[in-house]
Amino acid sequence: MKVLLNGQIIDRSDAKVDIEDRGYQFGDGIYEALRVYQGKLFTFQEHMDRLYRSAKKIDLLIPYPQEMFHEWFTELIAANHLDTGMIYFQVSRGVQAPRNHVYLENITPTIMATTMVAPRQLAEHRKGIKTITVPDTRWLHCDIKSLNLLGNLMATNQAAKAGAKEAIFYRLPETVTECSHSNVSIIKDGQLITHPANEYILNGITRQVILKLAKKQGIPFEERPFTLAELKAADEAFISSVSAEITAIGQIDDVTIGDGTIGPLSEQLLTAFSEEIETDCKITLTTD
Amino acid sequence: MKVLLNGQIIDRSDAKVDIEDRGYQFGDGIYEALRVYQGKLFTFQEHMDRLYRSAKKIDLLIPYPQEMFHEWFTELIAANHLDTGMIYFQVSRGVQAPRNHVYLENITPTIMATTMVAPRQLAEHRKGIKTITVPDTRWLHCDIKSLNLLGNLMATNQAAKAGAKEAIFYRLPETVTECSHSNVSIIKDGQLITHPANEYILNGITRQVILKLAKKQGIPFEERPFTLAELKAADEAFISSVSAEITAIGQIDDVTIGDGTIGPLSEQLLTAFSEEIETDCKITLTTD
Repeated sequence: MKVLLNGQIIDRSDAKVDIEDRGYQFGDGIYEALRVYQGKLFTFQEHMDRLYRSAKKIDLLIPYPQEMFHEWFTELIAANHLDTGMIYFQVSRGVQAPRNHVYLENITPTIMATTMVAPRQLAEHRKGIKTITVPDTRWLHCDIKSLNLLGNLMATNQAAKAGAKEAIFYRLPETVTECSHSNVSIIKDGQLITHPANEYILNGITRQVILKLAKKQGIPFEERPFTLAELKAADEAFISSVSAEITAIGQIDDVTIGDGTIGPLSEQLLTAFSEEIETDCKITLTTD
Repeated sequence: MKVLLNGQIIDRSDAKVDIEDRGYQFGDGIYEALRVYQGKLFTFQEHMDRLYRSAKKIDLLIPYPQEMFHEWFTELIAANHLDTGMIYFQVSRGVQAPRNHVYLENITPTIMATTMVAPRQLAEHRKGIKTITVPDTRWLHCDIKSLNLLGNLMATNQAAKAGAKEAIFYRLPETVTECSHSNVSIIKDGQLITHPANEYILNGITRQVILKLAKKQGIPFEERPFTLAELKAADEAFISSVSAEITAIGQIDDVTIGDGTIGPLSEQLLTAFSEEIETDCKITLTTD
């Protein structure tokens, strides 16, 4: 297995970072995860645009053009013979010693990327996952895809301990925002509803693709905050993320959504999503 | 220069961590910084108690007794011939691959410690620093001394760019909480006021020592939230932290506090603080 570290493709076992890398001491950095289908990068441009936006929001200058990442990722996919899976990559502010909250202007960011084999799991996406709801106590910059993920971790692991796959966040008293590592959307009376892209959520690339597809498919949608009560009374509900694509929610706390499996509009969107992969990656997917 | 990494005292230049250490990818860990005066650890017990409390709050099990850390730190101080300075140490959840929000139970935490020479700077503490006020947009678990410090960094660097030494946080609309890397207290009409130790602030060890000393010195104090208006109308104001000890605030945004330098009760507390160092460390400080 090979990884990318600061422009070099190296053996996984050699990939170490300095103990005073600010990513390690402060979570001072940003990341992205993107899908590879049949060796091709999906929505590369959208992920890179978000990376640079996140960087700007934390005043981090990435000293490379986006094309450089495309070259690196292409090299890494080849080195690992990756067919369908994920690329995870992060950019931390770099090494600065001694440790100081004030960062220097002239340090070089640390860039790291790994790959993971991850076949599509359409059967899983349709089956309907169990979720729980938890108060959203995270910071007010959830639009930044940063390495400060402890609030997300705590919620994910609370869900895991409850036998659930995802935690759905709500800001007190009852506004649903997103999930611990995905966005959440509901369908009610034929309309798709999802939280607007502001500082309370990470504007998922998959979320954006879904809204584009909804428009194309003539499915009416609204980006607006909705309540816990609306969530649990939804006709259909799904999470979306790079790895989950569109995954039906079957259960929220003790409430079953629809018949507990994927609903008709979610299925329509998932089919459209598969077509979008084919268009964007210029590939033909095998039937599943 | 030597550092501690997973129980070993090693050369600084050899100190690396794996790219899939959860500290590096999620900020999944906690830390402490403590003072060393004349080679002696100050308030070791208090820092260790807080470390284990932070660990518990993020469901991280530290597989060593506190005494182990005392041994390690004593060894590190000797290896680096540290007289007066700081020990920084952090415990991350450890290495887990592939990356997953859900953490495994059986991974071994990564423990790392570095030292830094840092003489006391009493003249600086008395001079009166410039500060700015910024909205507190951090998460609601500020009582956990975690590696998720991006919100603190953003505020510190905003202050630095404004030529200020510290950023004072306030929760909207106007409740002062703490600073980006210290606590804040005010003195009004002979009374010390500081935010109560709840989820909105890190309960500083220096803060706790100061309250103990105020009690001893017969200085009345109240732990209660106070407003931006109260902050700026204070007779005296100071920040407190392991490195800053008690440092007078001379200016808050455009408002000068007192005569811009340390006030009489702050001075009294600083003197008592020096005596507390002598008692706790069993040393005699040189006059400054």
